[in-house]
Amino acid sequence: MARTIARMTSLNSTQIYNFCAGPAALPKEVLQQAQREMLDWRGLGVSVMEISHRSADYQQLATEAEQRFRQLLNISQDYAVLFLQGGASLQFSNIAMALLNSSNQAEYLCNGIWSNKAALEASRFGNVAQLDVMRIDSNGHRSLIDLANISRPTNPAYTHFTPNETIEGLRFSQLPQTDGALVADLSSCILSEQINIADYDLIYAGAQKNIGPAGLTLVVVKRELFSQMNFDQCPSIFNYQKQDQNGSMINTPATYSWYLAALVFEWLERQGGVVAMEQLAIEKSNLLYQCIDQDEFYTNPIALKDRSRMNIPFILKDESLNATFLQQAKQADLVGLNGHRSVGGMRASLYNAMPLTGVQALTDFMLHFKAHHG
Amino acid sequence: MARTIARMTSLNSTQIYNFCAGPAALPKEVLQQAQREMLDWRGLGVSVMEISHRSADYQQLATEAEQRFRQLLNISQDYAVLFLQGGASLQFSNIAMALLNSSNQAEYLCNGIWSNKAALEASRFGNVAQLDVMRIDSNGHRSLIDLANISRPTNPAYTHFTPNETIEGLRFSQLPQTDGALVADLSSCILSEQINIADYDLIYAGAQKNIGPAGLTLVVVKRELFSQMNFDQCPSIFNYQKQDQNGSMINTPATYSWYLAALVFEWLERQGGVVAMEQLAIEKSNLLYQCIDQDEFYTNPIALKDRSRMNIPFILKDESLNATFLQQAKQADLVGLNGHRSVGGMRASLYNAMPLTGVQALTDFMLHFKAHHG
Repeated sequence: MARTIARMTSLNSTQIYNFCAGPAALPKEVLQQAQREMLDWRGLGVSVMEISHRSADYQQLATEAEQRFRQLLNISQDYAVLFLQGGASLQFSNIAMALLNSSNQAEYLCNGIWSNKAALEASRFGNVAQLDVMRIDSNGHRSLIDLANISRPTNPAYTHFTPNETIEGLRFSQLPQTDGALVADLSSCILSEQINIADYDLIYAGAQKNIGPAGLTLVVVKRELFSQMNFDQCPSIFNYQKQDQNGSMINTPATYSWYLAALVFEWLERQGGVVAMEQLAIEKSNLLYQCIDQDEFYTNPIALKDRSRMNIPFILKDESLNATFLQQAKQADLVGLNGHRSVGGMRASLYNAMPLTGVQALTDFMLHFKAHHG
Repeated sequence: MARTIARMTSLNSTQIYNFCAGPAALPKEVLQQAQREMLDWRGLGVSVMEISHRSADYQQLATEAEQRFRQLLNISQDYAVLFLQGGASLQFSNIAMALLNSSNQAEYLCNGIWSNKAALEASRFGNVAQLDVMRIDSNGHRSLIDLANISRPTNPAYTHFTPNETIEGLRFSQLPQTDGALVADLSSCILSEQINIADYDLIYAGAQKNIGPAGLTLVVVKRELFSQMNFDQCPSIFNYQKQDQNGSMINTPATYSWYLAALVFEWLERQGGVVAMEQLAIEKSNLLYQCIDQDEFYTNPIALKDRSRMNIPFILKDESLNATFLQQAKQADLVGLNGHRSVGGMRASLYNAMPLTGVQALTDFMLHFKAHHG
């Protein structure tokens, strides 16, 4: 049976669809270009990873990548755009080290594993109000509460939130209001929807979902915020202001990752930019949610209003079929569908690099699987 | 004339030799393998940069890479081997944050720009004795002083030194003695010569010279040292002990850089390991120094006993020829020869990936250049 499904879904192509939550699939065209240029970049006769970050050629790449990223998200010069290392997890520490002191407090809105991790790490460096903003609603679904209904700290130094929780598959559809600076971890949704950067004071994202390979982290910070930051306790290379003054090159950056991000930004432009990606994300996630919602065979545990467009967890009514589902999916060239080790079940991540055809192949497979096991 | 030289040195091949100090040349075979595997790693149908670091396939790669690295440098299980991010510069901060407190002091032996940077960064986090161990000798050469002749702090928490100074081209041929822990930045010489790991308590190296692409940092730390470390002031992901307990995966590591490092380690094994690399480094550097030392046309400013095998700076007697030299070298497919922006002149970096034929091509070019301009 598995082979029948495998044959059916992969009949016209040997395309493998990779639903991994991160490090995640990159656009095939980007990998093909990287492959072509691996030993000879721009006719230099060497790889882009073999040249000095201070060379004119690399400086041009770095500058153009930043400009493209600014254009994609409409980021003005009021904000610094930094290409750093260490992943989003390092920003958990760094933001708190820079913004917290002995006389202030930060507010962390927690709706999943990553926002909780961010709060826990920040609390090592200062006073943190950790607010649980997730509830189980009357349908048994995870749901974001209305922030107007809870007690919140007054005048926090900043409010931190995670617009898309990668593991739980939960998305803020509205921005939280705050008197403090608004800080957001956009790791799993950046470049998949339009944002109004003026709403934020600092956003950051690990690259390995919608930007490029793991090991690169983008930080966008309002330059006005520098005056409220204290970098005395931070490693020098995590002084945002110094990095801004030095083009993110206080020390050697992750040059190859930056190059791949540049290719992804060019690819995004060719696809129609973030506007097109947002439309596609809505279309892809709707298709998968419709398939899940047909009956009780598959279930997504998130309230309708808070469903993620990027990470869609689902469980089988009969969980004893999980292993069979994953095994047959793999045989049908649908990989990376296992849920996070902390929650189990299945999860399909639909980042920008996932084409609509991939989601169609997945829903085709899911319907056939249901037909044989329902 | 330049084209004559270009034709001569590249007659039998279109091979470009890249002498960049870092990010530096990688072995061509490694890049070719990475190119072949870019879209399909180990038959998975996806790139190695597109899979979860927690997948069985990636775990195997990571574990094997660590084992190979241990074998190459004969590193026992008394030491943790960590694959981190942030470059050597982040370790400047991290080591001091972990080992310094209000009642101790560290000794930094400074013989160039990088050791000075390390000391300066450490002094932000504690008491640092910064010792200038470089002198101009009677021949006008930069020379390491005999540590027995200077006043040194007693019982430092640790002594930090930089066995090879990348910019000045200066190498410690003997290990400094110390009552404290011995800490070394091996960024520009790791895997190019045998070391006795038992002599050290902590070594670290940015990858972008002898290991792989920029954005990966290797840290080797004696597990006994953990008890003297305090990670309260560090970002959690820079807690060496926690990283050791978590296979360097507290958070997503730089997976593609780790993969490339793994390929480099395999390549090193095929070349005969560090023993062979050390012999080759001696041969390559001798060849270039002999060419420089023929007469006054070229000069290397370092005392014979302290010359680097990895980074060889040289100046032309007539510095007005610098630009011509670099331009004609480039036409002869010899690239990356400009000196560091802080010192000018020329520099040839002869890391492991530079074959002997590359140094032969360089010395051939230098002799011809001298014949036309001497």
